Amino acid sequence: MTSEKGLLIVLSGPSGVGKGTVRKAIFDHPDTDFKYSISMTTRQMREGEVDGIDYFFKTREEFELLIDQDKFIEYAEYVGNYYGTPVEYVEQTMADGHDVFLEIEVEGAKQVREKFPDALFIFLAPPNLTQLEERLVNRGTDSPDIIRHRIDEAKRELKLMNLYDYVVVNDDVDAARQRVQCIVEASHMRRARVESKLRMLLEVNN
Amino acid sequence: MTSEKGLLIVLSGPSGVGKGTVRKAIFDHPDTDFKYSISMTTRQMREGEVDGIDYFFKTREEFELLIDQDKFIEYAEYVGNYYGTPVEYVEQTMADGHDVFLEIEVEGAKQVREKFPDALFIFLAPPNLTQLEERLVNRGTDSPDIIRHRIDEAKRELKLMNLYDYVVVNDDVDAARQRVQCIVEASHMRRARVESKLRMLLEVNN
Repeated sequence: MTSEKGLLIVLSGPSGVGKGTVRKAIFDHPDTDFKYSISMTTRQMREGEVDGIDYFFKTREEFELLIDQDKFIEYAEYVGNYYGTPVEYVEQTMADGHDVFLEIEVEGAKQVREKFPDALFIFLAPPNLTQLEERLVNRGTDSPDIIRHRIDEAKRELKLMNLYDYVVVNDDVDAARQRVQCIVEASHMRRARVESKLRMLLEVNN
Repeated sequence: MTSEKGLLIVLSGPSGVGKGTVRKAIFDHPDTDFKYSISMTTRQMREGEVDGIDYFFKTREEFELLIDQDKFIEYAEYVGNYYGTPVEYVEQTMADGHDVFLEIEVEGAKQVREKFPDALFIFLAPPNLTQLEERLVNRGTDSPDIIRHRIDEAKRELKLMNLYDYVVVNDDVDAARQRVQCIVEASHMRRARVESKLRMLLEVNN
């Protein structure tokens, strides 16, 4: 078990769909034994967020220096801010045999797909666009123009669904949390994964 | 949802691994909403078994007539008795949008793989594969002869495994039951299955 590489789990989906809330529910749950890769961002900290827990908050200058140094497995500029996943933590944690969980924007997920084709890609989908719109309105922090922009963007992002392995509809946070955990559990039982682990053991020790 | 075809779920594995016990646990559980396809056999009824519930019990003559009429999606002769899955129930139930569950021998599973490549194939593995893994990792608890014997057995079982999508270790009946249900739940969330339905919803509601 210790010699087996962990899974890379990517949760993504349109802005406003509730990725952060589902991610929090997952990591608050006692059954969760995978590691969360904290993203880096240049966006403003929102109320209740903590630096180094929700995100690593950086200035544009700091972020762009890290881009130049090739320190991200993915990054994207989204509504005027950078978001990225630092490479080092992800690779080290997987090599140690732990599953790593990324909650990232769809543009970033595309980049991860190219670099880690075997990762587990989960698309978090809104039950419908109306509900997405309600969530965006109720958040109360955005102007109608920004909301309109996010909806147009969400439609575009839904077209990206075809890069994903699974689609979890976020009609209820706890149900979505349980679905993601079930997908991860099932992925650990995929024959190719079980088989190669056993083969490896049988050959190493034989 | 109603117009969507059900999944075909195939649970198989080596003789004696506990397929029937896991199948019973699955169908005794309130969360199970798939249909069990009752197999047909020519073997003797065992104590506690009921005709039309555990199996349809038939004579060799009756069974062979059905073979001639091409009424099975799979059948095999095993330790002197026929076992088979009648085609009609399976196809009708899937067409009605229900998942159908087969618990069959490995030879039969091979035939189903050819006819239903999209079915969900789950290999129920004996716990000695896990125990073997533990022993190989920990070493020093068994004699070289016992380890050698277990390795040979594991290699034989690994060869049976390679037609399957998933491997569930039957170290505990209720845990195995829960793993099978999780695999089925995850399969319903596979992107290809969800995508078309969701796209339709988004267009209707916008």
